[in-house]
Amino acid sequence: MGERDKYAKLVELAKRRGFFWPSFEIYGGVSGFYDLGPLGTLLKENIKRLWLDYFVTKHSDMVVAIETPMITPEIVFKASGHLESFTDPIVSCNKCGRVFRADQLIEDALGIKVEGKTPEELTKIIKEKGVKCPVCGGELGEVRTFNLLFQTYIGPYSRDRGYLRPEAAQGMFLAFKRVHTVMRSKLPLGIGQIGRVARNEISPRQSMIRLREFTIMEVEFFFDPSEKYSPPFERFNSRLNILTAEDRLKGVEKPTTYDAEEAVKEGVVKNEWLAYWMVVSKEFVKELGVAEEETFFEEKLPDERAHYATQTFDQMVKVSRWGWVEVSGHAYRGDYDLSRHMKFSGQDLTVFKRFPEP
Amino acid sequence: MGERDKYAKLVELAKRRGFFWPSFEIYGGVSGFYDLGPLGTLLKENIKRLWLDYFVTKHSDMVVAIETPMITPEIVFKASGHLESFTDPIVSCNKCGRVFRADQLIEDALGIKVEGKTPEELTKIIKEKGVKCPVCGGELGEVRTFNLLFQTYIGPYSRDRGYLRPEAAQGMFLAFKRVHTVMRSKLPLGIGQIGRVARNEISPRQSMIRLREFTIMEVEFFFDPSEKYSPPFERFNSRLNILTAEDRLKGVEKPTTYDAEEAVKEGVVKNEWLAYWMVVSKEFVKELGVAEEETFFEEKLPDERAHYATQTFDQMVKVSRWGWVEVSGHAYRGDYDLSRHMKFSGQDLTVFKRFPEP
Repeated sequence: MGERDKYAKLVELAKRRGFFWPSFEIYGGVSGFYDLGPLGTLLKENIKRLWLDYFVTKHSDMVVAIETPMITPEIVFKASGHLESFTDPIVSCNKCGRVFRADQLIEDALGIKVEGKTPEELTKIIKEKGVKCPVCGGELGEVRTFNLLFQTYIGPYSRDRGYLRPEAAQGMFLAFKRVHTVMRSKLPLGIGQIGRVARNEISPRQSMIRLREFTIMEVEFFFDPSEKYSPPFERFNSRLNILTAEDRLKGVEKPTTYDAEEAVKEGVVKNEWLAYWMVVSKEFVKELGVAEEETFFEEKLPDERAHYATQTFDQMVKVSRWGWVEVSGHAYRGDYDLSRHMKFSGQDLTVFKRFPEP
Repeated sequence: MGERDKYAKLVELAKRRGFFWPSFEIYGGVSGFYDLGPLGTLLKENIKRLWLDYFVTKHSDMVVAIETPMITPEIVFKASGHLESFTDPIVSCNKCGRVFRADQLIEDALGIKVEGKTPEELTKIIKEKGVKCPVCGGELGEVRTFNLLFQTYIGPYSRDRGYLRPEAAQGMFLAFKRVHTVMRSKLPLGIGQIGRVARNEISPRQSMIRLREFTIMEVEFFFDPSEKYSPPFERFNSRLNILTAEDRLKGVEKPTTYDAEEAVKEGVVKNEWLAYWMVVSKEFVKELGVAEEETFFEEKLPDERAHYATQTFDQMVKVSRWGWVEVSGHAYRGDYDLSRHMKFSGQDLTVFKRFPEP
């Protein structure tokens, strides 16, 4: 039985046993939306509890959980940069009018990687290589950007634009100062959240792996960059499999195993807390049943990183049908978010540092 | 200390201790949105678990939980009637342009109840009684209806309109046939869900009581109307305090205490399962700390009921600051939803009944 058949059978079984099925099925379904059935709901509940245990309860000395809304006023995503940068390149067929994700289309047609290329560069490739509409064979137009935020209006005034959040992080940044005060002005401080997010993907595929609405589990961790910390690495087995950006550029495909503290000392991971949370994430995924050799952290290249990050690692897990898939992202955001919200809100979000008596 | 001061102090304390605070505070806040802080999040988690225990686990012989998306394609709310009927009357000031909920405005200005009146009737009252804009004193325009669904678009085509669900129920109706099959085609069958919903309220007030985005906990219960059931009333203390529509029309303000089964026999509650779930709801609220004499079920008058219901009870709880507030709604929806989705989807959602051997 081929991988494809096995996968199709598994999806069929998941439906029949009540794990998951396409939402709005009686209306033909809408891609990127899935229901969780009775067993799927129980399974997810267990995963959420385990995550809370690993990321919050086991770290109750420094992490708390909060809950913030999905609907968010426009100013927040102006400040965060999502309005400008949270986009995918799209292209329409001049003949049938269908819309495609331009990078996926090119990758499918030509088998080359084009992540991070500008719309102009993608248009050029399409013209030069003669890429056509995969459905009707028609000519394709110019590549343009499409914002992945779902837009709406808050209240009865059409000027009050809002968006569904694509990540829970901004809610944590906006609440940072209040949480910091509630938690007696200590640093480091982690704020965690489990909640729904929405991303208006152009043409979601891969079943449950790329959804338009899903639950995210996130921690934003705040620390004082002028202090040298010793994160509690000893709490876990802190080996990390890492494939650095440097190695990737050299064509290396196999990750190297580091001790987390060593990885920080050698400059492979740029911050000790970043390394620490990668360790926690690896241990969490292990508890879910993934063997250590079946997960590694892939450092993103500059043009693959989100606009807010100075260093990013994607945690990859091996899945028989899809190969390596990303299960978590670890970004060193620096003070990007807080300083942007200070600028856009005019509010002071800096915190006082208490020095020991002289 | 007056009720008002006590309430203000409590909200202040909730902020300081980290229970809840207005969302997007650093941008001045947006009414109808609140964050839950560390303690609020823990408290809510406990309430959700208790609800799951009462409504699902304690009824695992007939109820399961599922999870469906918040974003929903337009056809679903066309079928359900929400596109047409989930509206509030609004009126704009001709001078300052501010928009108000017309019924609230009239009730505040004249102290009369106008729930269920048409826009034309409300316009007439405003003109005749000379109600003015409460902010600038300007003339008010015609009353019109405003749909409370948050609208968005799914994917890159502007024709694919979607809405955020205002209740979790439709997801359960759409999934009914699949869940029924998964659960071995048994009736009665309850489908429960805890999830986010959104209602684009015109001018939300009352702090956490009327939010634009919140978590709902719902059970939709399916049974065969041709069968006479004996719900397991004996599992709980099944006394119910009920204020009937008939009594309300006579000016009675005090509810009458019934035994749930008696209430069904006397025709006060039109269906035995409706009465049963009211009992469960009362017990759940009691477990949360509300005394029996501080909660009752108010039968809605025909013009107060949602468009899908033949009989509806609101569970009211006494709150020191706001008086009696609705904490749950119990509607006898009949086959309204399933038959509408059959009509709009062209899918057969009827289920077979197995008869014993002849």
